[in-house]
Amino acid sequence: MTQARIGLIGLGVMGANLALNMAEKGFPVAVHNRTTSAIGEFIAGAGDLASRLVAAETPQALAAALTPPRAIVIMVKAGAPVDATIDALKPHLDPGDILIDAGNADFNDTRRREAALKDEGFRFIGMGVSGGEEGARHGPSIMVGGAAEAFSEIEDIVTAIAAKYQDAPCAAHLGADGAGHFVKTVHNGIEYADMQMIAEIYGLLRNDEHRSPAQIAALFDDWNGGPLKSYLVEITAKVLAATDPGTGHPMVDVILDRAGQKGTGRWTLIEALKLGQSASTIEAAVGARSWSSAKDLRILGEDTLPRAAADGTGPVLLDGDLERALLAARVIGYSQGFSLLAAASDEFDWNLDLARTAEIWRAGCIIRSALLDDIATAFRGDLPGHSLILAPAFARLLGDTVAALRRVVARTALCGQPAPALSSALAYYDTMRTARGTATLIQAQRDFFGAHGFERIDKEGDGHHGPWGMG
Amino acid sequence: MTQARIGLIGLGVMGANLALNMAEKGFPVAVHNRTTSAIGEFIAGAGDLASRLVAAETPQALAAALTPPRAIVIMVKAGAPVDATIDALKPHLDPGDILIDAGNADFNDTRRREAALKDEGFRFIGMGVSGGEEGARHGPSIMVGGAAEAFSEIEDIVTAIAAKYQDAPCAAHLGADGAGHFVKTVHNGIEYADMQMIAEIYGLLRNDEHRSPAQIAALFDDWNGGPLKSYLVEITAKVLAATDPGTGHPMVDVILDRAGQKGTGRWTLIEALKLGQSASTIEAAVGARSWSSAKDLRILGEDTLPRAAADGTGPVLLDGDLERALLAARVIGYSQGFSLLAAASDEFDWNLDLARTAEIWRAGCIIRSALLDDIATAFRGDLPGHSLILAPAFARLLGDTVAALRRVVARTALCGQPAPALSSALAYYDTMRTARGTATLIQAQRDFFGAHGFERIDKEGDGHHGPWGMG
Repeated sequence: MTQARIGLIGLGVMGANLALNMAEKGFPVAVHNRTTSAIGEFIAGAGDLASRLVAAETPQALAAALTPPRAIVIMVKAGAPVDATIDALKPHLDPGDILIDAGNADFNDTRRREAALKDEGFRFIGMGVSGGEEGARHGPSIMVGGAAEAFSEIEDIVTAIAAKYQDAPCAAHLGADGAGHFVKTVHNGIEYADMQMIAEIYGLLRNDEHRSPAQIAALFDDWNGGPLKSYLVEITAKVLAATDPGTGHPMVDVILDRAGQKGTGRWTLIEALKLGQSASTIEAAVGARSWSSAKDLRILGEDTLPRAAADGTGPVLLDGDLERALLAARVIGYSQGFSLLAAASDEFDWNLDLARTAEIWRAGCIIRSALLDDIATAFRGDLPGHSLILAPAFARLLGDTVAALRRVVARTALCGQPAPALSSALAYYDTMRTARGTATLIQAQRDFFGAHGFERIDKEGDGHHGPWGMG
Repeated sequence: MTQARIGLIGLGVMGANLALNMAEKGFPVAVHNRTTSAIGEFIAGAGDLASRLVAAETPQALAAALTPPRAIVIMVKAGAPVDATIDALKPHLDPGDILIDAGNADFNDTRRREAALKDEGFRFIGMGVSGGEEGARHGPSIMVGGAAEAFSEIEDIVTAIAAKYQDAPCAAHLGADGAGHFVKTVHNGIEYADMQMIAEIYGLLRNDEHRSPAQIAALFDDWNGGPLKSYLVEITAKVLAATDPGTGHPMVDVILDRAGQKGTGRWTLIEALKLGQSASTIEAAVGARSWSSAKDLRILGEDTLPRAAADGTGPVLLDGDLERALLAARVIGYSQGFSLLAAASDEFDWNLDLARTAEIWRAGCIIRSALLDDIATAFRGDLPGHSLILAPAFARLLGDTVAALRRVVARTALCGQPAPALSSALAYYDTMRTARGTATLIQAQRDFFGAHGFERIDKEGDGHHGPWGMG
């Protein structure tokens, strides 16, 4: 049997492209798929790379094609299929073999699997891979969690297949057990927020300013030459410029407005809540996708609910306001994401390097953007509470852009264009620059009805009460 | 040993007042507390009602003071203490005995406990009790989950101690296992949202319009005579009017702006996410409380982050705008809460009666308000998707108030006063009245980078792709 350097199970879009990427970089890959017909088809379609691909019809054959300590990448649907794949492999493994889950796992599952496999003598790596189909094929951003010594055995492969930012590979071992998958989850959360903010700016241009998709495409293309430069802005221009071959309509106009989601956005929020955090821009984005599914209700809503707009009373948008508003909101979204990473790092003792995390997002991944280099620089400094918006460079940038965000949010509110993510970003910004907030009133109410007690500004202790009597 | 009709464990603020309430209605209560010194103190302080209170120094004594089938109310801290209490009681119980958890349990725990106790021959009721200290003593709103036949054994007591709305008791059996605790959790979520909205209006009045707490108290007092009539608006007026006896300052001004939370808000959101729902007003409120805890960061933020206000460019608020804005946002918050109840009812087969739920919230509970009678009426009709905002009466009300909400949200955005809950409410409203939203663009992006596929408006199937090529 031909020996391979690494194994891979799951020849879906991401798995297949990752296998080709590894083969292209010179690593022979043994490939297996539950539906075995896909294996031959995949290799037959691999062209010159087929010589570095070894077909393994069974888990046993996959193990036989690898030399211990084996390294096997699992790229199957998150959840039970990962456990089933591990269970099918285990009888054919030796102690010290390394399993690498490269899917979008819930990091809690990764922690559980890592602990269980360690007890059985195996090693387990949770590896977040971002970049979609294209990234998997030619260079994704790779976020690794698990034991560092296990990662060292595959580091040459991971480094070779990763995206490069000015020659630096966008791959890093970030921490123990679930660290890589958690970082990937938050990456996706930020991606949700960024996409929703873009969609809100699009909505304002389309429905309030009545621009065509092609005109809006040109605008995004223009913005992609400035501080908003990023993969998501770039592809927004491309998809808005595309025409449906069948109908001749703008492509975006024939797509049903019901957005899918695969779970990472929700996982981000559930973990944020458990950590006592709130990443409100991600909440808004996940919420907007949920609401988009309620198509039937929205159709009824359009008939039933008055717009009651207050047009004409609001601010006039200034030149550049939309670009600046999106930039401000994007920075705030990133800041919330990184705060969440910092909180999780404390909770799970990962000692996450946030600067390194920003660095490996500079290329390959979906949220790659010109900002990330500046973000990495900011995190190399000493940021209070790991709060990105407090970095001098970003505070200055926000000072230049927040007024635009204010006008855009006000405009959406008055004209009736939904802007949950942009307004959430602004609300977070205004909350975090307010030393003395209105939670005083909430504490007073809680003490009034529930005798919960409160802290005072002038005395120690948290059990003070107001002079309410019993109502 | 004197026999009692019902037992109660846990003489904290809520438990003690509930015991007094039951005794006052004529039911002898056997009371137990882990720290036994509290038992004698409690009875000694109970005045005339002491004759209906039986001290039980141990779980065994508590069981002995009751006649099988026993009914025992547990009112201890949520989580492990509830399990510990159940474990301590079980050896002294007989088959068919009924345990009633009246605390704020996570309904998932209630489901687990109900199933486990049923296997052992016991009966378990999860009972949400709202109304704070005052409600527990003189009439709370009571949301019951568990087997209906178990509830029938204590229905006379529950009905007697509950708040009355025009003579109708605000207590009901709502569904199986965790239904009561889930409804209570969502009740608390709505309460969070309503309190946050009130705090945002207060913030605008205080910081943008520079009104004093006493002036704002007068305004809320005035609003409490109109459609905003509610317990929370009433007590807002009271707490804002209160003066700190020690300093002579308005009470609210000596309270530290760091709001506590005990978990029900977060639970509401985690369940919403699991159900694919988004109650964005509750998210905003829970987020605002989290951010309020970051006091040190906010102090730094005030020094670091520019306000960059766009004052003077925005709408002028009209007379009555703040009242109308709060009313619109409150209706939207309720609507999100009820949608969540409907989704959970479907998921867990509770067959929740949403009209009945609104009815038992009309008195006793923290969110009682003039609106709830209208809400009950709306749910007696046939609402598409159980969406309250689509009820004709509420669509009309929103038509009269949403323009005010628009101006208020715009005003907060422009002047820099945080309004996460009010703006979330508006974003939800505008999303739900938009038949064709901007998720088209998000679906296009997802297909572009991840080949996720999309639905089209003109063809069946969800696997359509755009003509993107590979970038």
